[in-house]
Amino acid sequence: MTKSATANGAASLWATFELTLEGPSTGNPFQDVQLRAIFRQGDREVQVTGFYDGDGQYKFRFLPDVTGVWTYETHSNAPALDGASGSVEVGPAKAGHHGPVRASGLHFRYADGSRYINIGTTAYVWNLQGDELEQQTLATLAEAPFTKIRMCVFPKHYRYNQNEPDRYPFALVKEGGHTWPASIEQSGWQFDFDRFEPAYFRHLEQRIADLAAIGVEADLILLHPYDRWGFSQMSAEQDDRYLRYVVSRLSAFPNVWWSMANEYDFMFNKTLDDWNRMIDVVIDTDPFDHLLSVHNGFGPFDYSDERLTHVSIQRPYTDRIALWREEFKKPVSDDECCYEGDIGEAWGNISGKELVHRFWDGTVAGGYVTHGETFYNDSETLWWAKGGKLIGESVSRIAFLRQILEEGPDEGLDPMPHTGHHKIMMAGGLDHADLRQLIIPPPEEQGWARAMVHFATAGQPHRYYLTYFGGNQPRELAVAVPPEEAYRATLIDTWEMTKSVIAEKVVRGDMLVFAPKPYQAVLLERIEA
Amino acid sequence: MTKSATANGAASLWATFELTLEGPSTGNPFQDVQLRAIFRQGDREVQVTGFYDGDGQYKFRFLPDVTGVWTYETHSNAPALDGASGSVEVGPAKAGHHGPVRASGLHFRYADGSRYINIGTTAYVWNLQGDELEQQTLATLAEAPFTKIRMCVFPKHYRYNQNEPDRYPFALVKEGGHTWPASIEQSGWQFDFDRFEPAYFRHLEQRIADLAAIGVEADLILLHPYDRWGFSQMSAEQDDRYLRYVVSRLSAFPNVWWSMANEYDFMFNKTLDDWNRMIDVVIDTDPFDHLLSVHNGFGPFDYSDERLTHVSIQRPYTDRIALWREEFKKPVSDDECCYEGDIGEAWGNISGKELVHRFWDGTVAGGYVTHGETFYNDSETLWWAKGGKLIGESVSRIAFLRQILEEGPDEGLDPMPHTGHHKIMMAGGLDHADLRQLIIPPPEEQGWARAMVHFATAGQPHRYYLTYFGGNQPRELAVAVPPEEAYRATLIDTWEMTKSVIAEKVVRGDMLVFAPKPYQAVLLERIEA
Repeated sequence: MTKSATANGAASLWATFELTLEGPSTGNPFQDVQLRAIFRQGDREVQVTGFYDGDGQYKFRFLPDVTGVWTYETHSNAPALDGASGSVEVGPAKAGHHGPVRASGLHFRYADGSRYINIGTTAYVWNLQGDELEQQTLATLAEAPFTKIRMCVFPKHYRYNQNEPDRYPFALVKEGGHTWPASIEQSGWQFDFDRFEPAYFRHLEQRIADLAAIGVEADLILLHPYDRWGFSQMSAEQDDRYLRYVVSRLSAFPNVWWSMANEYDFMFNKTLDDWNRMIDVVIDTDPFDHLLSVHNGFGPFDYSDERLTHVSIQRPYTDRIALWREEFKKPVSDDECCYEGDIGEAWGNISGKELVHRFWDGTVAGGYVTHGETFYNDSETLWWAKGGKLIGESVSRIAFLRQILEEGPDEGLDPMPHTGHHKIMMAGGLDHADLRQLIIPPPEEQGWARAMVHFATAGQPHRYYLTYFGGNQPRELAVAVPPEEAYRATLIDTWEMTKSVIAEKVVRGDMLVFAPKPYQAVLLERIEA
Repeated sequence: MTKSATANGAASLWATFELTLEGPSTGNPFQDVQLRAIFRQGDREVQVTGFYDGDGQYKFRFLPDVTGVWTYETHSNAPALDGASGSVEVGPAKAGHHGPVRASGLHFRYADGSRYINIGTTAYVWNLQGDELEQQTLATLAEAPFTKIRMCVFPKHYRYNQNEPDRYPFALVKEGGHTWPASIEQSGWQFDFDRFEPAYFRHLEQRIADLAAIGVEADLILLHPYDRWGFSQMSAEQDDRYLRYVVSRLSAFPNVWWSMANEYDFMFNKTLDDWNRMIDVVIDTDPFDHLLSVHNGFGPFDYSDERLTHVSIQRPYTDRIALWREEFKKPVSDDECCYEGDIGEAWGNISGKELVHRFWDGTVAGGYVTHGETFYNDSETLWWAKGGKLIGESVSRIAFLRQILEEGPDEGLDPMPHTGHHKIMMAGGLDHADLRQLIIPPPEEQGWARAMVHFATAGQPHRYYLTYFGGNQPRELAVAVPPEEAYRATLIDTWEMTKSVIAEKVVRGDMLVFAPKPYQAVLLERIEA
């Protein structure tokens, strides 16, 4: 006898396809039942881990990366879930469906090859604030320039984060306190970590789908230390079971990235072996190869680990992105470079000007920078944790930068070390470029050398050179494009958000002169000679 | 028969006392004649090297550090200069005469023990611009907050520095070109490096004395690479003879510091052995132990060398001063952190705001920062090279900082790592200070750790704590002074130059709340409890 599963409707490329089967609801289905499905097309075989969604419902989620007919069959130690089979015809992608974002060289692209520009923001637990605020956050995001949001699976305890979520990811055994305990044991909270609360995850999924609808990727933080409930201090077995559960639920969502942790090195009860084991659990459970990285506190994770798809680092020195690109040969996202705001914590009170500067600084270093906002208000609704409204000065400028990037090369911007060089310092003689060849500063000082010697330029050779002056305010820039090529020169005020063509045609050796002012950039775009 | 020398008047403590003798004027007195004088008081014996000042005049200069009667006698291979003797009574110091500046722990003091606050500026060859401009520079300095000026002995060739000086330090043989040559040999200039031009040095001395009269130290750059006359490429023997000459002329000037070079590592024809030998020549010739350091371009000199009295470094990262203090156990002066201006060169176009920030940043790191100004004008009179007028926005703010330092502890400001810490991040729980004990970032990232975790505070324990927020804009500061001590809290706007008491009395654990804004500081001064 052939069993068949219930599908969630017609299948299309890069859309989540879900199969549901009825199965046992007694005992502990989360632990007792193992289940997987194999999807096949020709020689292709994709194994999907199923999960228990409560009420006797078991689900398999599949994210087709090829159109046409796929067959499937299920395997389980529960007879009711074993041996179901069928087929599904995957139609073409619907509008706006591009598949998961992948690393593409030192930048990112959607799986369908279209361009993805990584402009993140941070609202760690916006999804645990109740419907009204969550809808406001979604409305804000729909108007904002961000294409990614960093957010947690688990609730968060922290300054300005003492509220309880509406629900918990595990079965609640006993309620505890709302302030920071001397130890998790003394918090009073007790959960049955062996039983998930499917409704908690269904809500998370709804929010991830809401993000997809407005073109925002969910950089999902799987573990974090800001905890008084005990979710950060489960046993290794419980951690692994949690990771298998959440990944089996979410890996067929196209817009999910795996961030193993926020500030992994602040989780003092976990060792590097734990992290390595857990990374494997995520990768083994995810058949769709989502982006995966580990976000640090003090000490960066080893980004040369080939299981990590990109660098998701915390550092205020955005100019070092150029070095990390070279060191790790992966796209770099500085996912915490401090936030625009005014709270007491030093990471949460840089000015809008400074945050916009770090965005530009990271951009011309060939990487990506993530936004956050931490202005205090009496309701303690700070964007960085709870979402809500954005009031800072940086957002509109980040939108302006995004527009420039969209108009720029499809390949993204790579650092161009030898262009946009300042005027030769001693007329006709030795210039700083020569000096650089003689005395190479140590790597940690290359940012310094750059600051003292020339301005960072990024682009694509022979086509596009974007030189950013940062807080410097030169009145001139020597055009150092390749010989026999002509360019149009545009002066950009990154703060005032203006662009003005200052020369219709320049060639190597020309000198551009303009009004000095901090936070300007010059864009050279190739024209016919 | 006893010869006697002509003195330049009554002697007083810390004033230059000069003896003149007539001697041979034929041959090459600079090379042929060796001469020295020994000054004695009790067991003290100070040996002074004499020099030829042209026209048959030989001089010995002495800088008495003790009052009372000193005797002297001269020694020379020229009989006319040998065996002169006499005595001089040194009276008390005249008003404003404090002696040379010395390193005092990690700060500086005059030899008489009074406080010296090192606030430098840079005008490399202001002394070679003709009387009108030089007088204007002196008038500017008299009104400015600077207590030190970095300046060169030799003329300078560079962008905006193509003019010829009125005179040269060596006898001119043949005039050459005014632009940068392919090599010094091709410049056309020829000098007799074996014959000094005393008038050149007399003019330099006049300007150094002019500086002393307005309380400004001359941080004298003995060698530099910006040269088309050949002064940077003399033989080792000529270098040594030049150093002996200039030091024997100038070491009795109280307000001279020896800066062996500007950007020593851009002088490619000199080796580290050369620098080590030349340092010894200066020290051997200077009986008065003036401050001595070596200023770098790319690669800092080894400041652990015990012959160097202080760190005179070039770096834009002023927060690293705290690390250099610890590493070298000497006072640190960041003598080139980029200049306020608008020229094309990246080191010469930071904003006034950024330069003032670097001054404060370096101050709360326990060190000192040097000013420079490089605004373009059509006459190419840029302060950084030629002096003239100051038009930048930083000078008045630097004066404001100087006033605060003058009102502060006589010992100067030392970094206070554990005070001025931000509010404990998780109420009642783990705070970042604990984290710092667990995970120590690598040294080159300590600036980062500081930027993310707490604000730099400098002061003197139990008395004075100055916390500077830099570009950050917190709305609050947790008072983290020692228990059972009371302090008055003053909010300082470093840019608007305002100070306002925001709490007459605070104790540990109090929270100061104020309007958030970049570039503010909070000063906590001890009051009676």
